Amino acid sequence: MRQALSILVRNHPGVLSHVAGLFTRRAFNIESIAAGVTEREDITRITIVAQGTEAELKQIQKQLRKLHDVIGVLDLRYNRSVTRELLLVTVWADERKRGEVMQIAASFDARVVDMTDETITVEFTGNEHKVKTVMGMLDIYGIKQMARTGMVALPFESVEGIWEPMI
Amino acid sequence: MRQALSILVRNHPGVLSHVAGLFTRRAFNIESIAAGVTEREDITRITIVAQGTEAELKQIQKQLRKLHDVIGVLDLRYNRSVTRELLLVTVWADERKRGEVMQIAASFDARVVDMTDETITVEFTGNEHKVKTVMGMLDIYGIKQMARTGMVALPFESVEGIWEPMI
Repeated sequence: MRQALSILVRNHPGVLSHVAGLFTRRAFNIESIAAGVTEREDITRITIVAQGTEAELKQIQKQLRKLHDVIGVLDLRYNRSVTRELLLVTVWADERKRGEVMQIAASFDARVVDMTDETITVEFTGNEHKVKTVMGMLDIYGIKQMARTGMVALPFESVEGIWEPMI
Repeated sequence: MRQALSILVRNHPGVLSHVAGLFTRRAFNIESIAAGVTEREDITRITIVAQGTEAELKQIQKQLRKLHDVIGVLDLRYNRSVTRELLLVTVWADERKRGEVMQIAASFDARVVDMTDETITVEFTGNEHKVKTVMGMLDIYGIKQMARTGMVALPFESVEGIWEPMI
């Protein structure tokens, strides 16, 4: 199964490699990771998407909780969280293809951030499914370069009682 | 100084903790990290923002290049790259404050993704400066929870000859 974990950590040197190291020692491949400071500058939120059996994923949550700098670990439920990632992508598009690419971008509410006579660069924000859809559509024209942030998430406040308090 | 590095790696278990470990051994604190697969599923792009002296940052680039699974390392120049990050933030806002918060969100082109009688959750995409500005404005109302992706970047294609070929 595939799981997304939200991990709150104290913002110390080394905490990220300790967290990543736990996954490595069990030969988990981390599919995506996104880490940035929270509303408190001494606390970072790390969101990791990884694959494993249910038992393996439970085990790793236990071990994460034992790390000194880990404050809390949450299993993100896709259907009860706002999940988002950010995509920057440069697509091959000359003057004959430009209109089509811009039309696709517009229909997904993606923004054009750069353009040359050969390429268009767009930014797009959405859940994983939408990011994949946009990538699939643009791939037809040829992707020159791309960068993805990895997923971040917050609980839907409008769905009650799903996340335990974190700190 | 503060530097953003774009690191292309082969998508093997352990590569992320090796990369993070290099920074740890030198007691660098990683400010943000964002990693996700690229247009090629076997290749991941890791974007790291870290602080250090110029000598330290040059040294770490050299060492990154020596890692087996590292394909390329690029020093991201802020002024020559599209840099973006994604912010999800839940703000305290009851019916008296809701209008103000929504007005701020709208003026920054942030999208409302959830709402209750006590809170509003918005998503926002922009460069680091804009993300900080939005956070500062919303902080006045009280931030209940937030998640940030960390920065990703692509070179401006419209500025020539700034990035060497990566693979």
